[in-house]
Amino acid sequence: MTEANWIKTYLKKNQDNILAELADFLALKSISTNDNNKEDIQKCAAFLAKKLESIGMHNTKIIQTKKHPIVYSSYHQDDTMPTILIYGHYDVQPPDPLDLWESDPFTATIRGDYIYARGVSDDKGQVFCHIKAIEAYLKRDNMLPVNIIMIIEGEEEIGSPNLAEFLRAYQDKLKADVAVISDTPMIHKNQPALCFSLRGMVYAEITVSGPNKDLHSGQYGGVIQNPIQALCHIIAKLKDKHDKVMIPGFYDDVLEISAKENEYLNDVDINNEEFLNKLGLNAFATEHPVNVAKQLWLEPTLDCNGIVGGYIEQGAKTIIPAKASAKISMRLVANQDPKKIKKQFETYINAITPIGVTINIDIHNLAYPARMAIDTDYIKAAAQAYKATFGVSPKFVGEGGTIPVVADFQQLLGIDTVMMGFNCPDDCIHSPNERLLTENFFKGIETSATFLSLLKR
Amino acid sequence: MTEANWIKTYLKKNQDNILAELADFLALKSISTNDNNKEDIQKCAAFLAKKLESIGMHNTKIIQTKKHPIVYSSYHQDDTMPTILIYGHYDVQPPDPLDLWESDPFTATIRGDYIYARGVSDDKGQVFCHIKAIEAYLKRDNMLPVNIIMIIEGEEEIGSPNLAEFLRAYQDKLKADVAVISDTPMIHKNQPALCFSLRGMVYAEITVSGPNKDLHSGQYGGVIQNPIQALCHIIAKLKDKHDKVMIPGFYDDVLEISAKENEYLNDVDINNEEFLNKLGLNAFATEHPVNVAKQLWLEPTLDCNGIVGGYIEQGAKTIIPAKASAKISMRLVANQDPKKIKKQFETYINAITPIGVTINIDIHNLAYPARMAIDTDYIKAAAQAYKATFGVSPKFVGEGGTIPVVADFQQLLGIDTVMMGFNCPDDCIHSPNERLLTENFFKGIETSATFLSLLKR
Repeated sequence: MTEANWIKTYLKKNQDNILAELADFLALKSISTNDNNKEDIQKCAAFLAKKLESIGMHNTKIIQTKKHPIVYSSYHQDDTMPTILIYGHYDVQPPDPLDLWESDPFTATIRGDYIYARGVSDDKGQVFCHIKAIEAYLKRDNMLPVNIIMIIEGEEEIGSPNLAEFLRAYQDKLKADVAVISDTPMIHKNQPALCFSLRGMVYAEITVSGPNKDLHSGQYGGVIQNPIQALCHIIAKLKDKHDKVMIPGFYDDVLEISAKENEYLNDVDINNEEFLNKLGLNAFATEHPVNVAKQLWLEPTLDCNGIVGGYIEQGAKTIIPAKASAKISMRLVANQDPKKIKKQFETYINAITPIGVTINIDIHNLAYPARMAIDTDYIKAAAQAYKATFGVSPKFVGEGGTIPVVADFQQLLGIDTVMMGFNCPDDCIHSPNERLLTENFFKGIETSATFLSLLKR
Repeated sequence: MTEANWIKTYLKKNQDNILAELADFLALKSISTNDNNKEDIQKCAAFLAKKLESIGMHNTKIIQTKKHPIVYSSYHQDDTMPTILIYGHYDVQPPDPLDLWESDPFTATIRGDYIYARGVSDDKGQVFCHIKAIEAYLKRDNMLPVNIIMIIEGEEEIGSPNLAEFLRAYQDKLKADVAVISDTPMIHKNQPALCFSLRGMVYAEITVSGPNKDLHSGQYGGVIQNPIQALCHIIAKLKDKHDKVMIPGFYDDVLEISAKENEYLNDVDINNEEFLNKLGLNAFATEHPVNVAKQLWLEPTLDCNGIVGGYIEQGAKTIIPAKASAKISMRLVANQDPKKIKKQFETYINAITPIGVTINIDIHNLAYPARMAIDTDYIKAAAQAYKATFGVSPKFVGEGGTIPVVADFQQLLGIDTVMMGFNCPDDCIHSPNERLLTENFFKGIETSATFLSLLKR
């Protein structure tokens, strides 16, 4: 029986148990951004550690950080084997707006071809693929084809503020040949992808303060600066009508796109009209020609993620509020430095703040962008594993999101990362009704198992 | 004993009872903008009606409208006497933000020289001044010096949507020589004021819609229009750097300021530095010279009263929201027509909406501005009553807020209004810790009583 056939049979037989265990994992409300979920995060880390111990991994530890813990586990098979560092995250985005979910976000629900739950795609479900692949080997052989280190963190959705410190402190226990992360989407359900670039991030919150209290807009309107309008003036000056970021120097360090990268961009088949239709839109942000893949993967951008000020309940209230605030994220590409962009942002915001208000800028997080080599043995094995499982070779793509750990692995551990994901772009990650194809979840386990066996020396 | 001495003695003797009754009135949560308070509004109307009946007023009725009821009551003394239409409102603004109140907004609390409660200034406390003046006469004389009609409505804070219809339907029962309203502030606690102008209003809510759901800002940021940023672009185009409204045609119908009005403006002593200091500000909305009285009373303006979109809780969430919305109020001056301004606003908003989003505009309310004659017998009597009570003659001032009924009285009943208020500009109306000087509350009763006696023929 070939490796692929064996794992297929194994998964078929254990399907119900595996789905039940996944549901237990998804039920834990490990929302990292909200302090109210601190205990849920700890419970989730404990669940994972217990799971890793129970499948036969060694050295399993819950390592506390300043905020949420990292779960560490390893299995040393043989000095001659390569060591694979599998990274994932067990924290999730908040589920709101709750009323748009068709089933409870923390009760995994199978409807049609999909499993629905917060985190099933991003990233608990994909973390589980690797755990279940390892379990299968240990159950059958009581050994693994390679050495494994797993680190699963609880702060990815808030920018991994304590991960770099952990990587530095645990450098000795993290010696590996390559890292593997499954947190990037395939092109569509029949077309896997290997990711060669990630965007970085500067996430800021700006607060505009005006009068020392909310005022009656009739009795004060017409002479004093309105903090909401001042904030809007600032935000309106962040992007021009061609949708380009207006912060001076913002584009200075952006890398040219190479011939090879242009080849990848041309190989990806994105239909602009379909792209818009799926989102219910009839236009992009600019009338200029849009190259979706290029702009999402290899160009930086800026988005306002939230804004609030004044009276936001039902009906009319006539006030000039004391303050207004907005959350703003900038997505960076290689070779932009988030520390430099942060400074440029702060300088610019201060320069464009209107008279009559004061401004405060809080930085929630910084993350470096990354661009990867793609001709390594590990990438080749990943491509082969995908081909064996899905029947087609993966395409090489970029990712518009941010996985800060990839840059950290490059800078702190000196290793590249294989980014092999199993979810799809329409799986609604960070949105209501997050989902994962049930079939892809099991194919993810199969791909992971095949990949590990192909690395055996 | 003079009229003034008599009412002073009466108030001293009944001070505690009067304050206790006022507290009962203030305890009723008559918030007109929030549907959850519908029953509180009805209770408040019932309280008022019972009060008016108990002091000896006639024809007291609670008149239901499409939303909140109007309390009507009258007392016909004598055909030879003038008929005074006293108008007030028993509805209040929402109390939020609740955490900034030093005592419960619906538990009247005396601290230092002040009574603190939502509505004590705007407008329940001032309505009570007239009720208590009438009660004093009926108790002493079993008659009144003039004929009285009282209408106290429950929709002033939401733009009096059903008042005009009521005025039309009840025209026969509202035949009067002049109206009196106490809902405008004095200059300061020792300087009463009579108001000769009011601003009108257009209150709109605009909602910008983008993608059909909240999206991951990494996976979609850089190609699609962000609804928050589109909204900010729109709002930033509503006022220029000189703080002037940019809607084409907005200023077309604004009346020139007359020589007499300029005289009033010069007579009002507003210190710009003190004005800013009190608000904790170090600048106005523009570097140009600012004439506070002129700009607040006789110039139109536009303010954003609330804005919301995307993630507004603690921490960072990386989304492009499906929509964002803002509440915007325009304050109009004579001779601007709110219906015309509404159209200009809608046309302009549609014209400046960026590509890639759609816009919806809801109009919450429209109100006409008003400018009053100031050389009538009624104004002279009011000035004399103020002088008798406060020891100084009132100044003639404008009001930046909106009291739509004044334009309605002009248009539908053909009568002018005497605007005699007893609160102060720093009484925090519409804000946390709304208050009224205890002394001014009683002086208000005294002024009302003196005014009525001066109108006796």
